[in-house]
Formats: sequence, C-alpha cells, structure tokens
Amino acid sequence: MKIDVLTLFPEMFEGVFGASILGKAKDKGIVSLQAINFRDYSNNKHNTVDDYPYGGGGGMVLKAEPVFAAVEDLKPEPNVKPRVILMCPQGETFTQKKAEELAREEHLVLICGHYEGYDERIREYLVTDELSIGDYVLTGGEIPAMTIIDSVVRLLPGVLGNETSAVTDSYSTGLLEYPHYTRPAEYRGWEVPDILLSGHHANIDVWRRQQSLLRTLRRRPDLLEKAELSDKERKWLKEAAAQEGIEWKT
Amino acid sequence: MKIDVLTLFPEMFEGVFGASILGKAKDKGIVSLQAINFRDYSNNKHNTVDDYPYGGGGGMVLKAEPVFAAVEDLKPEPNVKPRVILMCPQGETFTQKKAEELAREEHLVLICGHYEGYDERIREYLVTDELSIGDYVLTGGEIPAMTIIDSVVRLLPGVLGNETSAVTDSYSTGLLEYPHYTRPAEYRGWEVPDILLSGHHANIDVWRRQQSLLRTLRRRPDLLEKAELSDKERKWLKEAAAQEGIEWKT
Repeated sequence: MKIDVLTLFPEMFEGVFGASILGKAKDKGIVSLQAINFRDYSNNKHNTVDDYPYGGGGGMVLKAEPVFAAVEDLKPEPNVKPRVILMCPQGETFTQKKAEELAREEHLVLICGHYEGYDERIREYLVTDELSIGDYVLTGGEIPAMTIIDSVVRLLPGVLGNETSAVTDSYSTGLLEYPHYTRPAEYRGWEVPDILLSGHHANIDVWRRQQSLLRTLRRRPDLLEKAELSDKERKWLKEAAAQEGIEWKT
Repeated sequence: MKIDVLTLFPEMFEGVFGASILGKAKDKGIVSLQAINFRDYSNNKHNTVDDYPYGGGGGMVLKAEPVFAAVEDLKPEPNVKPRVILMCPQGETFTQKKAEELAREEHLVLICGHYEGYDERIREYLVTDELSIGDYVLTGGEIPAMTIIDSVVRLLPGVLGNETSAVTDSYSTGLLEYPHYTRPAEYRGWEVPDILLSGHHANIDVWRRQQSLLRTLRRRPDLLEKAELSDKERKWLKEAAAQEGIEWKT
C-alpha cells in the first residue's frame, strides 16, 4: 500500500513513521509512507498557501491551488485511483469499520489542514472522503492522519506478528477486553484473582467472557447493542445490569 | 502546565512536540513536555516490561512494576496531584468537554501501552482516568496521547494567537462549520457563492449560520440535539429537513 500525506509540517511524521509497528511495516516493504509539504506547490513568490476568507471574519483559509497541484503531482500507479481523504472536524467519524475498508485500498492520500478551514472547492471537487477522528478540536490534521495510518497499516497482511493479533481486539469482538494480569501474583498486597491461577481453562474462559460483558455493560453499554451475544449471555447480562442498577434493554 | 508521557517509544514524540503550535507553546514556556521511557524502570536485567498473562491466552501483558516506578519517580510540585491517564480502548471516550477539564489541571501524566493490555493493578491502583480517542484499534497509546496533548495545550491561555481562536470552533458552537472560500473567486470554473462577494455582512452572517445548520443536519444530526438554537432556527431546520428527506426531531 502507498500512503501519501500532504502537510505543512512533514517533520511531525518522522518519529511516527520510523518507530514501532509502522516503522517495521515500512522496512518490510508492506507500506510506503511519504509526507509531502504542499507549500512546495504554492504558485506565488512568498510561498503562501492561505488567504483571507471571502465574506470577512477571522482566520485564514487554505487555498485550493496548492492542494490540487500537490495531489495531481502524485502520479498513482496505472489503473489505481487513490482515495483522497480530507482530515477535518466536519467529516464522517472514523471507526474500525472504516479502517477495514481503507485497508483494502492500494493508495491513500491524506490532506492535513491547519488554519480556520479549507477552501470549499477542495472539499467539493478534489477529495473522495472527509474524516474526523472524534468530537474534539485539534490544531491540525496531522495527528488525525497518523491515527488513520496506524489503524489501517496494522490491518495489512504481514504487519502484526504472531505475538499480537487483530482478531482478539476489543472492537472486533464488539466488547471491551477482560482484565489482564501478569507476574508477580501479588504486588504490594494486590493479588491476581484465584481463578486465573487455577489452571482450569474452561472456567477461565467463562470468567473472562463475563468480565468482558460486565466491563462493556458498565462503561460502554452502547456497544452491547451490536455485539453477538448468546441467549444465555443476554440473560446473565440482564441480571448483572439489574444488580448494578444499570439500565440495559436486551 | 507539565505533561509527562510514559512510553516505550519516546522518539515517536520528537516531531510532534517540536513542531507547529505545540512547539511554540513549549518555547513560550506555557507547557513542559517530556516523553519518558518506562523501560528504564524495569527491575530485571533483560529490561523486560511485559510478561505472559495469568490464565493463558495469546499476547503479552504490561507489568505493573515499571509503570508504578516510573510514575512515582515523577516528583510533582508540592501540593500538585497529577492526573494519571491511561490510554486504552476500554477508557471513556475523549471529547472536547474532557479536553477543557484537563486544560484546568497543572500536571498530566499519560501512560501509553502496547502489547495485549495492562496489568489490571495499574488500572485499579495507579491511574485516575482511562481514555480512548475513538472506536478504532491502534498499535499503541502514543498517537492517542498526542491527540489529547494537542487538544489540551491549544486551550491553554497564550497558546493560540489572534489569528486563530478557540471560540469559533466547530465543537464550541455545537455545530459544524460553514463553508469557507478564499481567492481566486473563480478556480477552474468553480465560483465562490455570490453572497460572499456582496459585502452585505448581515446577509453573509445569516447565510453562514444556515450553511452551518444545514451541514450539521446532513452530516451530524446528533449534534443538533445539544446545540443552542433559536425558535426561528428550529423552524427553518424543520423545513430544511423535510425538503432533504432527513428525519430530525425538533
């Protein structure tokens, strides 16, 4: 997969593109990652990429020209149509489902804005997607682009080794994860639950599933609506909800 | 404000802490940003920070000891109790409201995990908050930590200059932003709406507010429930919703 990021701050990506799992995926040749400064595509002598908004008001608006020019200079492979994604608070909220969808593409282009906003013509005539990573305000699109790249690249075949797996993730089972414990069995007087030391794997599986259900019920009951649950689990959850005083409709 | 990040990949933060608005906030002395490798607090000769999970199963679990030791070595200012935030998919979903809350703190500590999960005792006895930035899976807590730091630091007094303002943000008004345009007035045949060139500021304000309402209705009708709307606006929205075939309850 090829991923190009258009940004005014390519140096922000150096640490993230080089480290950990993204760095390894790059070294293995599974993904090519490039941060391009679209200021280089400015067509004026001061290299400006922003200008005052028509109609007045505060803030600066990112001009259409350098962004169109940078995207059009990317030269995708023959027969590959890149997904051109605008990082913006007005976009669709990014989810694991969208990550899975993007992981099937061959070429992603992510556009990171700063300033007050983008010239609307970028939105209307250049991009294929607009994405937001959540309901909070950031200083620019760079960290959101990193978020999307990280979540997409880890899904590519060969990226995650055997030691980790995309299958047991929270959002794949639709539930939050059960509690994990490792050595020591007692730390500062705080003990690991007996069941995990019992060696009885069937019981451990039941306990973990129940802890997972319970944590989801307590923290993210909205996730239960989409989760795959057995009738027995629904019944168990209903009792647990009643006991905890949590409203949950089966 | 003091922000310490505990991570196994401190080099991931270099680009982000140095560039753009975060870098400027640091240079102005408004915030101190530090990425600490908690592997340095491992108490074994191989410097391991993870171990197999009790009860079996795949993946490695982050041990309690090095994380407790790293947090306890931070030495906060007298009378300052740091907020110790665990980045994890099981956490509360981060929002702009939470960013505003954290911006009032003096000292934040963000713990970034990798591997399958954290030893539960970290969660129970060390941290004050658990946060998730959204419903998607990432390879670690580093990019989520950057997200939270960026959104919090930009709210600190003196960080955003006059050219930008936290007040007109999407999530402050509760609505998505209206379309922006800048020069040229015509680009590749695509024109700026006449109203923005009219010079009639009262009409421009009405148009912008309506565009903002319309975009929110089309893309994020859930936000309208919490937005402050006049009776006139509710009526206008109701008509617009009917015209667009969008279901919206006033």
